[in-house]
This record gives sequence, C-alpha cells and structure tokens, in this order.
Amino acid sequence: MAILTLTTDFGLKDGNVGAMKGVIWSICRQAQIADISHTISPQNIPEAGLVLARAARYFPADTIHVAVVDPGVGTSRRAIAARLGVCFFVGPDNGVCTRLLDWAEASRQPVEFVHLDQPQYWLPEVSHVFHGRDIFAPVAAHLAVGVGLRQLGTPIADVLRLPLPQVERLPDRLRGEIIHIDHFGNLHTSLRQQDIGWQTAATIALCGVKIYGMVSTFGDLPAGELAALYGSNGDLIISVVNGNAAGRLHARIGDMVEVYAADG
Amino acid sequence: MAILTLTTDFGLKDGNVGAMKGVIWSICRQAQIADISHTISPQNIPEAGLVLARAARYFPADTIHVAVVDPGVGTSRRAIAARLGVCFFVGPDNGVCTRLLDWAEASRQPVEFVHLDQPQYWLPEVSHVFHGRDIFAPVAAHLAVGVGLRQLGTPIADVLRLPLPQVERLPDRLRGEIIHIDHFGNLHTSLRQQDIGWQTAATIALCGVKIYGMVSTFGDLPAGELAALYGSNGDLIISVVNGNAAGRLHARIGDMVEVYAADG
Amino acid sequence: MAILTLTTDFGLKDGNVGAMKGVIWSICRQAQIADISHTISPQNIPEAGLVLARAARYFPADTIHVAVVDPGVGTSRRAIAARLGVCFFVGPDNGVCTRLLDWAEASRQPVEFVHLDQPQYWLPEVSHVFHGRDIFAPVAAHLAVGVGLRQLGTPIADVLRLPLPQVERLPDRLRGEIIHIDHFGNLHTSLRQQDIGWQTAATIALCGVKIYGMVSTFGDLPAGELAALYGSNGDLIISVVNGNAAGRLHARIGDMVEVYAADG
Repeated sequence: MAILTLTTDFGLKDGNVGAMKGVIWSICRQAQIADISHTISPQNIPEAGLVLARAARYFPADTIHVAVVDPGVGTSRRAIAARLGVCFFVGPDNGVCTRLLDWAEASRQPVEFVHLDQPQYWLPEVSHVFHGRDIFAPVAAHLAVGVGLRQLGTPIADVLRLPLPQVERLPDRLRGEIIHIDHFGNLHTSLRQQDIGWQTAATIALCGVKIYGMVSTFGDLPAGELAALYGSNGDLIISVVNGNAAGRLHARIGDMVEVYAADG
Repeated sequence: MAILTLTTDFGLKDGNVGAMKGVIWSICRQAQIADISHTISPQNIPEAGLVLARAARYFPADTIHVAVVDPGVGTSRRAIAARLGVCFFVGPDNGVCTRLLDWAEASRQPVEFVHLDQPQYWLPEVSHVFHGRDIFAPVAAHLAVGVGLRQLGTPIADVLRLPLPQVERLPDRLRGEIIHIDHFGNLHTSLRQQDIGWQTAATIALCGVKIYGMVSTFGDLPAGELAALYGSNGDLIISVVNGNAAGRLHARIGDMVEVYAADG
Repeated sequence: MAILTLTTDFGLKDGNVGAMKGVIWSICRQAQIADISHTISPQNIPEAGLVLARAARYFPADTIHVAVVDPGVGTSRRAIAARLGVCFFVGPDNGVCTRLLDWAEASRQPVEFVHLDQPQYWLPEVSHVFHGRDIFAPVAAHLAVGVGLRQLGTPIADVLRLPLPQVERLPDRLRGEIIHIDHFGNLHTSLRQQDIGWQTAATIALCGVKIYGMVSTFGDLPAGELAALYGSNGDLIISVVNGNAAGRLHARIGDMVEVYAADG
C-alpha cells in the first residue's frame, strides 16, 4: 500500500487537490494520500520546501512526495521526479525539493533525478496551467504502482537548487533570520540548536526587542510573555505564550535574528 | 475498494465533515474518501456544482459524489441519488448536480434518479438540519457496499436543474460572465476555448479594462501583468501574474466579460 | 483496518498534521485517518472537547480519537490514553476528553485511563513542544495495531475534568449559555431539547433580543430572519436564515441565553 503526500499553494476551495486525488486513485486505487499543506503562500517555493521537508522525515520509507508550487508552469521549467534518500519526490524543477535533497546528501544516501519526458505516464491531455493534475499526480501514481524512475524520464544532474538561509558567525554573536511564521504566530528562525549551544543564558535580539534567556517549553513562562525556545525541529523559535509573536513584533519572513552569548 | 467524494459548505472547524466520514466508515470501512471542498460559500449551490463537476471528471468510474450545500434541508425539498454516466451522485434535489447531469447527457451516457424514501438506509435518527450526516452519508456508503439505486429510493424524472451561464453571440463579440473566483484571485469565465476559437489576437473586456491578446500560461508575462489565458478546464480565465486579479479589478461573480475578434 | 481521528489547533498551513499521519502510517500503514478539526481556536480546550465529542459518536466502535490542544505541552501535565466506552482517546490530561468520558459514564460503559509512561511506544526523540507527533501519534498507532492500554502506561483514576456548562432552572425560565459558534455563525447553546420540552411556543432571550417561538428547520422562515431551532446534536441553536447570527448579534461564547415558557 503506497503512501503519497501533497504540498501545494492551491488553497482548499476550488477542488484542485481533489482532482489530483482522483487522478492518483484512478491509477493506484489503494494509495494512502496525506495532505501536508495546501495553504502555502501563493508561489512561495521556499515555504513549500520547508513545510514539506519538516513533515517528510516522519513518513515511512518510499513515501512519494508531490509538491506543486509552480509559478513557472507551462514555461520551459522542467518537470522532474527523484529518488532522494529514503523517499521519492515529484514536482517542478524550481528548487522546492532543495531541503529534501540536502538531507539525503548529508546522510550520504542515494540521489537520482529524472526529467519527466515520457508522456505515456501523464494524462492524455495536458493543460498549460495545471501540471499538478496532468503530469505530477499521474507520474506519482505510476511510481506508486512500481514503475521505475528511469522509465518515467531521462536522468539529469543539473536540477535547480535554492540558496538556503545561512547562519553568520560574528565575533560576539550568531546572526540568522526568520524563515517561517506558523499558524500560532510563532517565529521560526534559521538558527538551530547545534549552532547555538550555550542555550539557556543567551540573549536573543530581533525586531527591536531583546529576550534574555531561553526556556524549554511554552508552559515555563506566564501567558503573554515573549519566549525563546527550541521548536520541534530543533530550530530556535520566538513565541508569545498563548499569544501571537508575529503580530506582537510585526515580524516578517527574512527579518534578522541575532543570538548573543551569555556575557554578550 | 469504493471511492467517495465530499463537497460541502460546512467549513473545516466544526467537525461535521468528520462526522460524515464516521458514518461512511461505519457502513463501508474501506472507503477511500476525498474532500473536494468544504469552503464553498455558504448556501452557494452553483459554486458547489461547478467545483464538484470540475474535479469529478478526474475520478475513476463508479466514484460516488456527495454534495451537501443544502439551504432547504428539512423542508419539502427531496433527497436524491443518481447514476450520472460513469459516476454516482447523492445529495439534495436543488440543482447542485446540474453540471454532472449535463455532461452525462452530452456524452449520451445513462442517467437515472431516485427519490431517497427508504429510511432503512439512513441513520436511525434524522435531524431536521443535517441530512449530510443522517441521510446522504449513509446512503452513499450503502451504494459503496453494493446496494442498488432502486433499493435506495423511487425513480423520478423531474429533478430540479439550475440554469447555467450561457454565452451570447453578438455581431462583433462574445459575451459571457465571471462564474468563479479561485484561491489565487483568478477570474474564471463562462467563455470556453471552443466558443472563442480565434484565441491569441482577441481583445477581452471586463470590469472597465481591456486585455489585448491571450497567452499560453502565466509565465509568458512578467509578474503583475494582467493576462487572459485558458484555464485547466478550457475556460477563459483572467489572471494577474503572481498576483490577484479579483482584487485588482474589484471583480465579482456574475460580472460581464466580452471577447472581441482580433479586428474588433 | 483501524480508524483514527485527529482534532487539533495546529491549523492547516504548517504540515504538523501531515507529520502526525506520517508517524501513524509508519506504525500502522493501513489506518484510516479522519481529520475532525485542525482549526480549533488556539489553546481552546473546551471547544476541542465539544467538536470532538459531537463527531466521535458517529464513528464505529474502537475508533481511536487523538486530540492535541495542549498549552501545557512539555510541562508536568501528563500524557494519557483511555478506553471511554466504545472508543479510545489519546491526548493530554487537560480535560479535553471530559465530554467523551461523561457520555461513557452516563451509558454505564467501561472507562479506563492510563498515564503514558512507556517511552518504547513513542518516537525515539521527544521534543518539548510537539507531543502530538512524538507521543500521541505513535501511541495511537500502537493501539491501532493491537497493543493493550496497560502496556502503554500505568492505570490512573485522577484525570482532570473540565466543568461543563450547566443549565440553571429559574422559576419562570431556563438559563444557559452560548457554547459554540459554528462556521455559519450559528450560536450553539448549552440548552438541550430534553431540558426545554415545551418547544414551539417558547420565547428565547439573548444578546438583547427576543425570539418568539421555535421552528423545525432553517427553511421555515424567510432569509435574514432570526430563528431558534434544535441543531443536529439536539442543542438549542440560534441562527439567521442564510445569514450569520454571531455577526448580527455580536454574540460571543459564554453569553447568556434564557428560555421562557410560552406564557412567560
């Protein structure tokens, strides 16, 4: 029983996700399909890549991840599929799979890309504007029933990679940025637990405020307090306990976040 | 393994869609269930019919589509089920299935309606306000386990049909209307590729603006440009590249859209 | 084939629900998983408990309900699992299961709680902030594959119960409150059909207005009218026909609702 996931910016109103499931079940009737997110900000490829990568690591081996945030649909951007370590990826060649690729490489797992150029695995009619339904869904379903990657397309080695936010090491501090604002208004940063190390006594500066010290979890501070803590993916997050940090700090993705050592 | 779909205006907060799935799985434990949309505008029967019909054509034969946009629930409006060509429909007799019916008739496929009047296929208690859970879900699940349409109700031939937006052919132009505004703010119109024909050089007029010429896909124009193109269902759509056309043009469903030939 | 449900305040954007499904399918590949709601108001335990309980009664016996509205995650609040009559519950010990527990007790069905203290049934690494993914999802999946409740934890009898809104019986009227505002803006109250009895001629007072008499369903009054009727769970609800009662009356959860007998 194959498992597929879907990550898109389609929203939930128009039935486009449903059409993709219809296509998948037409080819692989027993597929389990999980919606990762369909409310990625329109055309926001880095956000889709982050949300997908964070969820993907919790799926069983051989799960097929389909990501369709695709502003270049119908242009010369390629459609691709890949083996990325323990999982498969199907989607546009626009960098949305960069984090999955990084993780596979970092753990020295096999990586293989193909350019999807075999129309016999697509729907008979392909629109210029909805490759999620017409190419990616049927290709993913064919993978699910056992068609090999190299039957689906031609091997390539030059896929587009997105630059990922880096951590800058200055003499007295680390500098990163806000990379995601979640449903609760928590600010997720590019700074990770392994970057910071001296945790609890650090001072965090962002958006014109300073936070002195870190806590283990939300419940360690009273409601309404600003808190710095490690999120469930090991990233430094800034939160207002039972509140909304993004609203309080007028924070945006890309805003700078700095961490000073305890004596900084 | 039966496949069912659900299209409602219930929203996602209250658990009503979950209750319907519980009812379905209580009768047909292995049913695959796809959510088409649960954020249809409240009581908007034409929108539900359009969204369902567009997705439905991508599902395998014998899929059972349940649509519950039902302002007349508990009144004398009938509950119905139908064979509509390759698929089944279960829902209120309020026109929500008109497009599915049209397509089945246009392709000369079999069509058969029954009035759901056999309470042994419903939940034991039926509320006045939630037939989706109490009548439509159990009836759909009984269809899924093989109960025949005529066991579920009495054949009828007088179901309610909604008038669908038509295309008006004037001497120098075609006139249609906006029938749907999607998640991205794209404007979907009643004008179809087979109506227009002289595509690329046409002039499109709507909401006080004119668009000269059509493109193949979003990426053919720079971000922020107004674009006219064919959507994934073959309809003329008006879009702002990587933007929101509905917001830009203050467009609403029902607004007039006119297409002039190249020399118009 | 096991059935699980998920009720959270995670929202739909961040992929956290997807991660939970990945964890579940890693342990129990064939589980059917229904989303009850992921847009519970942040940290609103009573709302989650109500939404879950209303949907849960429509699921087959032995369904495993996972609820993660968990402001105390990572603190000393316990993680629990329970047999509650015909169903199972997995989640935090914060009262979110109070209604399920009440129903099981009211029908004299078996009730058994365990404190989840057996980490071999959790993910290998447990974050301080996402027990839904790291503890509750894997525990629920282990229940789904047949692990016994007492293998998962130590029996306890002192779980936290939330006080549920009560009905006050005054000489000339019943007094309750608004307990839920649904997607349509309907106001759900703590007053139930079995409390009121003298239905149709009652006068309902709330938010500075009076409604004279009750109706059976929305369609019994013209669009735009205020209506009092019994909802699909037997609760008194206040509605604006094809409109939004919460907006019209500026109503909030907790607002008082009074019902006078016909001669009141």
